[in-house]
Amino acid sequence: MNTVNHLRVLLIGANGTLGRAVRTALRERGHEVVTASRTGADVHVDITDQDSVRAMYDAVGSVDAVACAAGSVPWRPLGELTAQDVRAGLEGKAVSQIELVRQGAPRLPAHASYTLITGILAREPLLTGSVASLVNGAVEAFVRAAAIELPGRQRINAVSPTVFTEAMDAYGDTFAGFDPVPVARAANAYVRSVEGHRTGEVFRVE
Amino acid sequence: MNTVNHLRVLLIGANGTLGRAVRTALRERGHEVVTASRTGADVHVDITDQDSVRAMYDAVGSVDAVACAAGSVPWRPLGELTAQDVRAGLEGKAVSQIELVRQGAPRLPAHASYTLITGILAREPLLTGSVASLVNGAVEAFVRAAAIELPGRQRINAVSPTVFTEAMDAYGDTFAGFDPVPVARAANAYVRSVEGHRTGEVFRVE
Repeated sequence: MNTVNHLRVLLIGANGTLGRAVRTALRERGHEVVTASRTGADVHVDITDQDSVRAMYDAVGSVDAVACAAGSVPWRPLGELTAQDVRAGLEGKAVSQIELVRQGAPRLPAHASYTLITGILAREPLLTGSVASLVNGAVEAFVRAAAIELPGRQRINAVSPTVFTEAMDAYGDTFAGFDPVPVARAANAYVRSVEGHRTGEVFRVE
Repeated sequence: MNTVNHLRVLLIGANGTLGRAVRTALRERGHEVVTASRTGADVHVDITDQDSVRAMYDAVGSVDAVACAAGSVPWRPLGELTAQDVRAGLEGKAVSQIELVRQGAPRLPAHASYTLITGILAREPLLTGSVASLVNGAVEAFVRAAAIELPGRQRINAVSPTVFTEAMDAYGDTFAGFDPVPVARAANAYVRSVEGHRTGEVFRVE
């Protein structure tokens, strides 16, 4: 018997490889998934734009969980990196995901949770990936810290996957020697975060 | 017999509690220390200003090591945090320290090293410290990543101390239950990074 309540989950970045898998996994668990994305979702959002995040929360109303599968960072050799690349990565995946939490915290119910996306670059560096490492490390540390300050019993975790089997055609050379995981395993970690009771944790999927 | 060559070290943030201790420790080891700070040092620098960092490197000329003891972040309850606080912290301690590396890498000799400052908040959260956690986590992940891409045999490490004994009057309540360390121990970790051969590491001082 399934004793888990069905939840209303706001999924951001619903159209990427990971987002689609998370949507499928949450729906298979019986949850309602409201999708948000730059295009082709229930609600439009650009998470790097504070006003757009506000408009998204206004449009969606109350949810039990926020799951983010969105965020982009530039990949560039350290020797070619500009200060603007560094800032673009921080805005694209760190400040943006923090904005979801910052604006969600006072709006969402006391039991709400946030599940953010990071990645293995936080712990295993790769050539041209210094901004990805920076940003993933930032978000993981923020998750540990925000967990002790969120209102009510709100929770926050990060899902930190290695390269996906489905992405090996595109990224296999970059991730040579890494063991890829099916994206469904990362999606499963979102289910674990959303339905579970843990907080301040990084769910490594590798 | 001391077989270590005497090095020329550029110390940024030379006038703070930590900076003064690092200067003393490096000089006791026989190194030449060129100090940089907003005020009262050999060279003026504002590390959050790209042009100021460039002018500093132009003024100082070649050095064997860059040691940074500068960087500031806002401390504020999560519920009062603005997006601007998040960006101010990232600029003040992450983008700024990365700028030292980004501009130093093509200028400095093949054996040069960078020693950046982070802090225990990267791994142990504290109330009102979510931006400090974010930024320290960011810099530590960047250090691991940059280590594999620096030119020549350039090295990079972070020193990540807990609260200093010397700061307990000011911060003792915030760090209740933490074991403080004398700032001289953190300064010693800078010596270990500057004189040593390790790279991509976080030297925890706790």
